[in-house]
Amino acid sequence: MTYVPSRDLLAQALAGSSRAAGRLISRAEQGAEEARPTLAEVYRRAGRAHRIGLTGVPGSGKSTLVCRLAASLRAQGRRVGIVAIDPSSPYSGGAILGDRVRMTELANDPGVFIRSMATHGATGGMTHAALDAADILDAAGFDVIIIETVGVGQDEVEIAKAADTTIVVSAPGLGDEIQAIKAGILEIADIHVVSKCDRDDADRTITDLKQMLTLGALTALRDGQGRPLWTIPVIGLSSYTGQGIDELLAAIGRHGATLAATALGAQRRERVAAFRLAKTAETLLVERFRRAAQALALPLSQQLSRRDTDPYSAARSLIDQTIAKEFSP
Amino acid sequence: MTYVPSRDLLAQALAGSSRAAGRLISRAEQGAEEARPTLAEVYRRAGRAHRIGLTGVPGSGKSTLVCRLAASLRAQGRRVGIVAIDPSSPYSGGAILGDRVRMTELANDPGVFIRSMATHGATGGMTHAALDAADILDAAGFDVIIIETVGVGQDEVEIAKAADTTIVVSAPGLGDEIQAIKAGILEIADIHVVSKCDRDDADRTITDLKQMLTLGALTALRDGQGRPLWTIPVIGLSSYTGQGIDELLAAIGRHGATLAATALGAQRRERVAAFRLAKTAETLLVERFRRAAQALALPLSQQLSRRDTDPYSAARSLIDQTIAKEFSP
Repeated sequence: MTYVPSRDLLAQALAGSSRAAGRLISRAEQGAEEARPTLAEVYRRAGRAHRIGLTGVPGSGKSTLVCRLAASLRAQGRRVGIVAIDPSSPYSGGAILGDRVRMTELANDPGVFIRSMATHGATGGMTHAALDAADILDAAGFDVIIIETVGVGQDEVEIAKAADTTIVVSAPGLGDEIQAIKAGILEIADIHVVSKCDRDDADRTITDLKQMLTLGALTALRDGQGRPLWTIPVIGLSSYTGQGIDELLAAIGRHGATLAATALGAQRRERVAAFRLAKTAETLLVERFRRAAQALALPLSQQLSRRDTDPYSAARSLIDQTIAKEFSP
Repeated sequence: MTYVPSRDLLAQALAGSSRAAGRLISRAEQGAEEARPTLAEVYRRAGRAHRIGLTGVPGSGKSTLVCRLAASLRAQGRRVGIVAIDPSSPYSGGAILGDRVRMTELANDPGVFIRSMATHGATGGMTHAALDAADILDAAGFDVIIIETVGVGQDEVEIAKAADTTIVVSAPGLGDEIQAIKAGILEIADIHVVSKCDRDDADRTITDLKQMLTLGALTALRDGQGRPLWTIPVIGLSSYTGQGIDELLAAIGRHGATLAATALGAQRRERVAAFRLAKTAETLLVERFRRAAQALALPLSQQLSRRDTDPYSAARSLIDQTIAKEFSP
């Protein structure tokens, strides 16, 4: 594959090439320096699409739901971009795919773009790469961008939250450990979905969830004066029978309209921008630090492995040396 | 509760007070500045215990296995410290505990210390807090420290890897999504456990796992010349029947002896020290950056939310301003 400059890939993506969009996403994922001016331009061009963050614990049926949702949005004539943040395999060197295979039915539709991103090896960098990917698809004219993450791990949860509309998927019949994880993500939802509602124990799950939300004061989004602007719905859904899909689509539409019509919209945009600024700055800072610290770390880490120093003193010394070398004018 | 200086808590912990050890762990978890000189001293005093990192996907039966393991180690007369990294609940403000309740049988044994740490709200900070917790228990005289994490998320995997002996738990009968996550953690194991071996499908899981390990060249740990120093065992185990527990204990002992007798020991200590230095330095750097950047970020994030700038330019500007303010001499 010949090397194409990122700005040319962007021009091709804007002209409708999904392949070019995909290659540009790869550059973002690699943290390629060369791509950054282009990604900066992408950001300025983006902001039109409805971004949906979708998260839930492993086994909650997120990917199947994403397929259903994408198919319904396609039936309305909307172009759909999907960014799935997946744990990676050490074997393929990239994202792998149990669930992705279910997406093949959509994969041949040119109005759908599906991209799996690996989390392996990335620290923080994944977060802003995923947000760059959403911007690329947004600028390339996709109407709805769905970002799917596993709802475990700080970064994964934050990515799902950095959307216009965040959907949290719960499922009946998961074990204690999984339910405990779930509790940590309930607070980020604009819309709750209980999946697998063809199962007998789904009603119980819906009742329990509603009770948890009431206990946690998580039933509505409010303005600065505490007035409710959005009541957080709990939607029972079955990807198998199709029950609840229309209700979910309607709720997504209503939530979008509420953002446009009330103070929630500006609130949300500012929250997402503040998060993105912080995350990008921290990622760039740590990248720069790591590069510069590499040559200085070995004697300190050897002392540390002999317990001749301690992590705090060694870290402070590494920071001071690195700043003197890299950050001083 | 009256405020006790951290150095006094350490003195009490060294004299055998588990309560004082627990309070000192809380200080580490909060990132309390006051505790840092004490934690530095803790590090220098630690290094005697055998540290076991234990990880696996949700639903693999990790906590039950930890209980079994702790009970067997107690039967050998060894003191056991357990640090469990748990997703947190927004309701309790701390770690919650489906699985922890199973640990109550051990909780009344003064030779066992169990601590759940929350991951909620922590970014990176959790990693070095967990390692500080292990050091505190090590310095306080616990013979074996088990650090249990959910094998999802970069930080959780890294914590499990920063141990003398890392155990990865797999279970039969989990779904595609969970198996995909599992693939990302196979490479860190010194010992593999397949849990729930009372189930019919366990043999199949063991066969599949062995095949994946062979394909991935993950069957042995080697020295610099490629000579195998440790063959990575795959142990079928049932916490329900007790099958395999003795075999696991023997493997842990053998792995510890291999570390002591071969180049693997120094290799491992250096890897863990390098990781710890990097993680601590990055955490302290980002902490300091965040504090200083807070006052400078708002105008930039407002520009960003209007898409009048882009994340990369805004982040660079924030880094430059913050360095000029905070990091210059």
